[in-house]
Parts: sequence; structure tokens; C-alpha cells
Amino acid sequence: MTDAHPIITLTTDFGLDDPYVGVMKGVILQICPTCHLVDLAHTLSQGDVLRASFALRAALEYFPQGTVHLVVVDPGVGSARHPVAVHGRGMYFVGPDNGLFWFLADDDPPPRVVTIQNRAYVLPRTSSTFHGRDIFAPVAAYLARGVRLEELGPPLRTVVRLDLPRPQRISSHRIGGAVIYVDHFGNCISNIAPEELGIDLTRGSWTVRCDAGQLPVRRFYSEVDAGTPLAVIGSSGHVELSVRDGSAALQLDLGPGAPFVIERLDG
Amino acid sequence: MTDAHPIITLTTDFGLDDPYVGVMKGVILQICPTCHLVDLAHTLSQGDVLRASFALRAALEYFPQGTVHLVVVDPGVGSARHPVAVHGRGMYFVGPDNGLFWFLADDDPPPRVVTIQNRAYVLPRTSSTFHGRDIFAPVAAYLARGVRLEELGPPLRTVVRLDLPRPQRISSHRIGGAVIYVDHFGNCISNIAPEELGIDLTRGSWTVRCDAGQLPVRRFYSEVDAGTPLAVIGSSGHVELSVRDGSAALQLDLGPGAPFVIERLDG
Amino acid sequence: MTDAHPIITLTTDFGLDDPYVGVMKGVILQICPTCHLVDLAHTLSQGDVLRASFALRAALEYFPQGTVHLVVVDPGVGSARHPVAVHGRGMYFVGPDNGLFWFLADDDPPPRVVTIQNRAYVLPRTSSTFHGRDIFAPVAAYLARGVRLEELGPPLRTVVRLDLPRPQRISSHRIGGAVIYVDHFGNCISNIAPEELGIDLTRGSWTVRCDAGQLPVRRFYSEVDAGTPLAVIGSSGHVELSVRDGSAALQLDLGPGAPFVIERLDG
Repeated sequence: MTDAHPIITLTTDFGLDDPYVGVMKGVILQICPTCHLVDLAHTLSQGDVLRASFALRAALEYFPQGTVHLVVVDPGVGSARHPVAVHGRGMYFVGPDNGLFWFLADDDPPPRVVTIQNRAYVLPRTSSTFHGRDIFAPVAAYLARGVRLEELGPPLRTVVRLDLPRPQRISSHRIGGAVIYVDHFGNCISNIAPEELGIDLTRGSWTVRCDAGQLPVRRFYSEVDAGTPLAVIGSSGHVELSVRDGSAALQLDLGPGAPFVIERLDG
Repeated sequence: MTDAHPIITLTTDFGLDDPYVGVMKGVILQICPTCHLVDLAHTLSQGDVLRASFALRAALEYFPQGTVHLVVVDPGVGSARHPVAVHGRGMYFVGPDNGLFWFLADDDPPPRVVTIQNRAYVLPRTSSTFHGRDIFAPVAAYLARGVRLEELGPPLRTVVRLDLPRPQRISSHRIGGAVIYVDHFGNCISNIAPEELGIDLTRGSWTVRCDAGQLPVRRFYSEVDAGTPLAVIGSSGHVELSVRDGSAALQLDLGPGAPFVIERLDG
Repeated sequence: MTDAHPIITLTTDFGLDDPYVGVMKGVILQICPTCHLVDLAHTLSQGDVLRASFALRAALEYFPQGTVHLVVVDPGVGSARHPVAVHGRGMYFVGPDNGLFWFLADDDPPPRVVTIQNRAYVLPRTSSTFHGRDIFAPVAAYLARGVRLEELGPPLRTVVRLDLPRPQRISSHRIGGAVIYVDHFGNCISNIAPEELGIDLTRGSWTVRCDAGQLPVRRFYSEVDAGTPLAVIGSSGHVELSVRDGSAALQLDLGPGAPFVIERLDG
């Protein structure tokens, strides 16, 4: 056991109406009775690999080194994708290699990836429809217990990438972006992370132009009135299109993929 | 304490909008501070004893011996049903004896059943409307701590049965069944468990006939195209009517009780 | 560490579709790896401070002394309200001081309240939009670890109050009340707590009059037929307007604020 209280996070599209998530926890606790189980999200749209990956990516840095992230969003269980275990950023990732872990692909140093083949670390009877229970849950539990990644199976070169919209630098003060994730509050989180792009939105006056009009860029929701649209740097470090005490998705009719431009007015 | 980390599972129809499940956990943790709490399902339709029992039954075998399963689906709290604690299959079950535990009734050896009467193991003030909090949660916690079943109250002969549709063996290669549980994905889980019936669906060519037409029996979803109906042996070992990357319940208009026949074509 | 297994409860309006609750748990477990995390409710209507406070208040007494209650329902994050930590009734409370903790205001002895200012107990980089993650979760975890309230910041006189409808004593046998919380079952929980008012509903014959008609006051749901309205003393000790095996909210068209009178018929 590498850690007295290892953490395993769970992200699935299983919903909460059936016992499927609970069953995976039973499997895990039989193998690793001391671990902490933390649900990230289970009510993702079925098969929404992109949304699951963004949810996971936003959560990552808030978990300690050694955490195991179990992700089961697996359209077409049993079709051609590898079941994988990955070590990257000091943490472990377990799930189907269908693009869920795209954000690790270009890390430096690169992630270590293995395809799960060692039957000693999966359930004795593996169903054809519930790999979350039979393969991924036990592997996550064994990793939490300290089993070495390389014992699980042979290495893969890297993880599957997703083809994502990237921010377009139109000029030094003008960047094209897109909404990539709409949260429960209707906040529209974009692919523009100013810090990664070397842009400081606190210097000068910035604005966002989207189909619904122009939004001021502000630091706090409270800088505008309730019901007013604005753009902020959200909690994940990305530009978010929001409405104070309201839903930008509903009020501005925005969804995943919606394009916009952020630009400096006084540049 | 029989176990350093005893597990208590929770299954209710309380929903997740109110603090009722959390309150039961508070009661449990006061009595058994080291236990693991695992939610199975809380968004069951109100009073759906049948669905709760199937959810629990499908989950059972993935939990370790000694696990305590707390189930509170209790239409008409305070009416004529015994509050019971049961020991069977190496585990404990606590809840109202209204049919929730029907699947234990014919076990060999039979389950040990007691009606909860010893007021030393329930909350000092018992409300008339929330037995989950006042009776069942504390009893589950005391069992997890190692209290003996017989200390809780006098024995009952067995648990209440439910009148369930049983599979009909029409001939050696033809069996009539019914849908008993529709899950979040729209998979229609049936009362036909081939292994229990001594039938091997991997030998020969089998088909399912239901009101919506004829479905091939396959081993993997990926053996048919997306959007195509099929029957598989699901993760619980029962025949399931499914649609790859879709909902059989919606597409084939199936629900609990829907009849079908599975038969061998080349028999 | 004051306790081997301190408990932190979580109540938010974050919903369950995003990883926000899970992220707070990651933050907490980094600081206090041994604590138990118990969800009270996360699907509250956005910004519904009143409902959150009632959910918390109903749950309180079922948790052990020393429990930390983390509540993040925070319309207008970053606007003029103090982030506070409170010690009262032997427990801790952490969240925005926007009325969430009104029920502690008149306690005797009064609660100890501090405004959170010590940056040693919050995340190094504090976002402008997610104080739950950056301020409240770490403070809750440090309190669970045994950090003293006074280390967090300077004292406040008390917590913010809410302006709530109070029961009106019309005569010794006639009290005016209002619905304050409608639960998942459609039970309409009121502001009338007979024990607090010195009234014994088990003596004599009582009735409730509301816009939808007259309801008998009974001890058990099972004293009326299924589908019949009644009033009971609910599990929180308050008068509840209910329908046996049905929803009083739907059937009697009641919601928060709905007025009624409870009176003794044979007084």
C-alpha cells in the first residue's frame, strides 16, 4: 500500500438511477478497503467523451499526487479501443482509450500508457457489457494499492487524441475562441486560457463579441448588475461567457462549439 | 467491531434534493465512525419496491461478506409491515419487510430474519414518518459494529415474497420471459438468466421475438451497427433487450412487464 | 487532529452534472485525508439560501459534536458578504454570510463568528468565481483538522439573519403558520413546531385549515387512506401537510409561503 488513504475519483455516464456506480465501488472496496471514493460526475450525456474529459481535466490539479482517476464513458463497449491505464502528472488514469485522456497526450515528460491485459488484475468473469465493473474498477483499485503500471500489460506509445477546436490568434490583441463546456449554471467555458496564451486580461480594456452581441470582460460577477452578460476568467483559468445570477447558455443561446472573439479595445 | 472498515450500502426512494440520505449517514457515523458508506440508488420512483429489490440484487455479489445493505423504500411508513434485519449470503439486510428482500426467501440455507424491537438499537425518539433515520439507519450501523442479529428482536420465519413473473420453458429451445427492469441507458433487463436455466446461448443461433419484432442474440454490442436492436446476456447474467448506442425502451417501446420469447433457430 | 474521523457535510447549489463538488472534496482531502465527507444536498435551486438553511437545520442534530458543515449557496460570488466560519451548538459552519446561518443568530450562548481573512488557510490562488473551492473548502478542512476558529480571522458580532414568517398565536388553541419547505415527496413542512410552542397535538382533536380545505391532524400516515390529505408532526418536529402515498404540494396546490391555521376542535 503506497498511501494510507489513496483517493479514487469516479466519472461515468451511468446516471444515478441504477446501482452501477455503487457496484463499481463495491468492487474497489473489496480490493482496496482503505481508499477514499470521490464522485466527479455521473450524469454526463451518454457517450459524451469530450465533456467527461473536460470535467476531469478541470478537477485534476485539486487532487493529491497518487490519486487514481477512473473514467468510464465508453460508447460501444467491447469495440475497437484499448482498455488503458496511464501514469501522468503524478497521477493515474484508468478507462477506455477513446479520447478521454487526450489532454495528457502532449505532456512533457510524456505519459506512460499500458493496455490492460493481465487477467490477474481484473474480475475472474468479464462480461461483454460492463467493463467499468469487470476491468476498470479493479485495475483502479490495484493501482491505488500500489500495483505497478507495467504489471497491467504492455506499453502503448501514447493515448488517443481528440480533434478539438483550438484558439486562433488573429492578432496580438484579438483571439478567436469557442465554447467547449456549458455547466449547470449555464456558464459557457471556452478554449481560451489567457495565461497559457501569454495574455493578461487585467491590462487594458477587453471585450467579447459573439453572435448574441458584445460582452464586457470583468474580474467579478458583482461588477455588473444581476441578469447582465459578461465574460470572466473562470475557476478553471479559461474565459467564460456568463450572466450574473443567470444562465448565459439560455440568455445568449450559446452551446458547445459556439464561436466568439475576444479583443482589446484600447490596444 | 468485526471489521476495521465495514461497508454499509444505502438504497432509498428519498431523491437527492433533500438532506434525508445525509441525515441517515450522520446517524450511522455517530454509531460506527469507521464505516464506508456506498450509495446504490436514491432516485427510485417513490414506493417502487420491485425496482429497489432488483437494483440491490444485481449489486450484492460485488460487495464483501459482512456488508450491511440498508434499504428504505417504505410506502405507508408505520403501516402493517415488520421492520426487519436479515442475515443471508454472508451479508446483512435492514429495512421494511414489504417484499424488498424477496430474493432471499428461497435461499438454502434459509436467511435468518428478526423483527426489530430492541429499543436499545434505535434512536431514543422515534418519529412516525422517518423510520429510515430513526430505526433502520441505527440498526444498520450497530450490525456493522458487530451487534448480533438476535439481539435486535425475535425471529420471523422468513421474509415477505413478491409475486414476480417467472420464465416459462415452452420447449427445450424456446423460453418465454418478461422485462423486469429498465435501466438509465434504456436496456431492458429480463427475468431470463440462461445459466440458471441451464441454457447456453453461445451454442447455436438464437433470436428474441417481442412485440416490436425480432432481435438477434449477440455477445457484444459491437457485433451490430449503432442504432440496431439486439439481445445480449447483460452484466447481471440476465438476457437484456438493447439497442447499440441507443435506448431499447424508447426505440422498441418496451417497459417492465413486456413479454418476449427467446428461441433457438437452428435447434 | 481533534478527531480520528472528523465529518464534513457539504450543501451546495452546484448540481451533480459538473465536477465542482468533487473538486471541493479533492481540496478537503489534501488537507484532511482522514475525514468523512457527507453530501446533504447539491440540487437546490440556484441561490436558494432559505431552502439550503432549512435543509441544514433539519440535519444538524443527527451529526456528532465537532462536525463541520460546509455550505456554498452564494448568489453573487465576490459581492458584499463576509466569508465566515462559525462555532455554535458544538459544531462548525463555513460559508458565505448571506443568511445561510440565520438559525444560529439567537442561540444562547451566542455563536462565535469570524470573517475568513487569514490567507494561510485558503488556496494560494483565489479565483473570483469559485470561493467554495478556494476559500470555504480549505477552511472547512482546516477546522476538521483542529485549527482554532480564531486563527481564521477577526470576530464578527453575529451572523446575518433572514426575515422569516413566524407562527402567529391567534389564541391558545389556534395558531397561524406557513409552509416553509416542500420536500421531494411533496410534503409541505411548516414553521409550526408544536413542542417549541408548548402545544401538545396528541391531546384533543386538531385540524388544519388551508386554502384547499380542512385536513385532519394524525400521528401516522396509515391512519388515513392512500391519496387522503392529512397533517402530521413530521420528522423534523414541525407540522407537515401531507398526502398519504401522494404529494400534498401537487394535490393541494401548496408551495413555500402558503398560509394555514391549525386549531383544536374540542378546545
